[in-house]
Amino acid sequence: MAGTDKSKAGTSTASAGGPAPVVILVRPQLPENIGAAARAMLNCGLTEMRLVAPSCRWPNPKAVALASGADAVLDGATIFPTMQAAIADLGRVYATSARSRGLVKPVVNARAAAADLQALVADGQRCGLVFGPERTGLESDEVALADVLVQIPLNPAFGSLNLGQAVLLVAHEWFHAGLDPQAHPARSLPLGGSRPATKEEMQGLFDQLERELHATNFLRPADKVPAMVRNLRAMLQRADMTEQEVRTWRGVIS
Amino acid sequence: MAGTDKSKAGTSTASAGGPAPVVILVRPQLPENIGAAARAMLNCGLTEMRLVAPSCRWPNPKAVALASGADAVLDGATIFPTMQAAIADLGRVYATSARSRGLVKPVVNARAAAADLQALVADGQRCGLVFGPERTGLESDEVALADVLVQIPLNPAFGSLNLGQAVLLVAHEWFHAGLDPQAHPARSLPLGGSRPATKEEMQGLFDQLERELHATNFLRPADKVPAMVRNLRAMLQRADMTEQEVRTWRGVIS
Repeated sequence: MAGTDKSKAGTSTASAGGPAPVVILVRPQLPENIGAAARAMLNCGLTEMRLVAPSCRWPNPKAVALASGADAVLDGATIFPTMQAAIADLGRVYATSARSRGLVKPVVNARAAAADLQALVADGQRCGLVFGPERTGLESDEVALADVLVQIPLNPAFGSLNLGQAVLLVAHEWFHAGLDPQAHPARSLPLGGSRPATKEEMQGLFDQLERELHATNFLRPADKVPAMVRNLRAMLQRADMTEQEVRTWRGVIS
Repeated sequence: MAGTDKSKAGTSTASAGGPAPVVILVRPQLPENIGAAARAMLNCGLTEMRLVAPSCRWPNPKAVALASGADAVLDGATIFPTMQAAIADLGRVYATSARSRGLVKPVVNARAAAADLQALVADGQRCGLVFGPERTGLESDEVALADVLVQIPLNPAFGSLNLGQAVLLVAHEWFHAGLDPQAHPARSLPLGGSRPATKEEMQGLFDQLERELHATNFLRPADKVPAMVRNLRAMLQRADMTEQEVRTWRGVIS
């Protein structure tokens, strides 16, 4: 049901298993928001969009403008008359909703939802992520159709998001939860063409620096020298120097 | 330097310590993006915005429209001629940049940056989060001014974000990293006015159901009854019923 151009979806980070979750926008009002949602989806490897009774003309050039190139998502979007119809073929449905409307239903934050969805998809389940209309949110009967409610933690004094932003935050949690930490480390220090300096190379730098500082009579009085030397070395060590940088700084000292 | 109306900032989730990081937009082009950034900031408890040589008129009604009420952030925004001036009073500067431009600088993803910043702020350090111009990103000399580069992991085949979206994703990581997990559990099951059913109440439900099923001769043949009963109970148990729901379902069975 999604667009025929799935090439961009090939970068989805979903673990092996079924296709990534479907994003379902219920009665969206503004085509700009549909376009922004499509862009956010493709940014995060989600490609299948379903629209339930959009209240704007469809297709809509304003959606295309805001999609900024995520045309395949819009072109593949399918229209349903009701949320019930839009989720009929899915196994597990998560709906963003600020309120649980008195229903006893599990509530998770977007990060936990993303972890769940990655696990469900890896297990081959077809899942949906439902977003309600801009002004009103989902109706109670629609909230009742969802298995799990998703809440996005935000400043309680200023928590209103537009639809495109809500899709972006939830979609990005999905993407992040699927990242392979080997290929996408949280922290790195790219070294260009160089490599980390060895302890011997650092010692060579320390020795040269201290020889020069003795020669220029900087290191005195004698009883303070050991602490001064330790402090100079500590600073240089914190910099995690590369072999190239050690050579450059030895040149600077000469 | 931030706006005088700091009331909304009172909900910031920053641990005790200094104020939340400053958001610095370098040569932003579109006022709409500045407005969207202000909204995203306040959504996530960030209130201090600095603008480096904005290339649009300032102040700008288009920014106000997109800020959707985050006026205090825009009103408090201060203007600087250069990034160097805008970060002069800060202790630690993180800059979003797709490329490290050959510099040997630590690169972290937005989530790791958020964890760092929460720790630095708790330690009383003044920190900045820098975003470059929409089209070109930061120049090499500006990248060089940052201590750490931040990258937002996205679909490599479709990774372009607009400025407001980039600010939203990074700001939301900041907010999430500061959440108190006691007050904001990742998962919950709000029970309305009820409480979880006790094992004794569940046993009462099982007993009644099985009596009725025996009475209507549903439970047969006799050798299959123990497994049938275990399976019925397993389903009911998975639902994590409340005391109120047990009473309702006992009424249904009667």
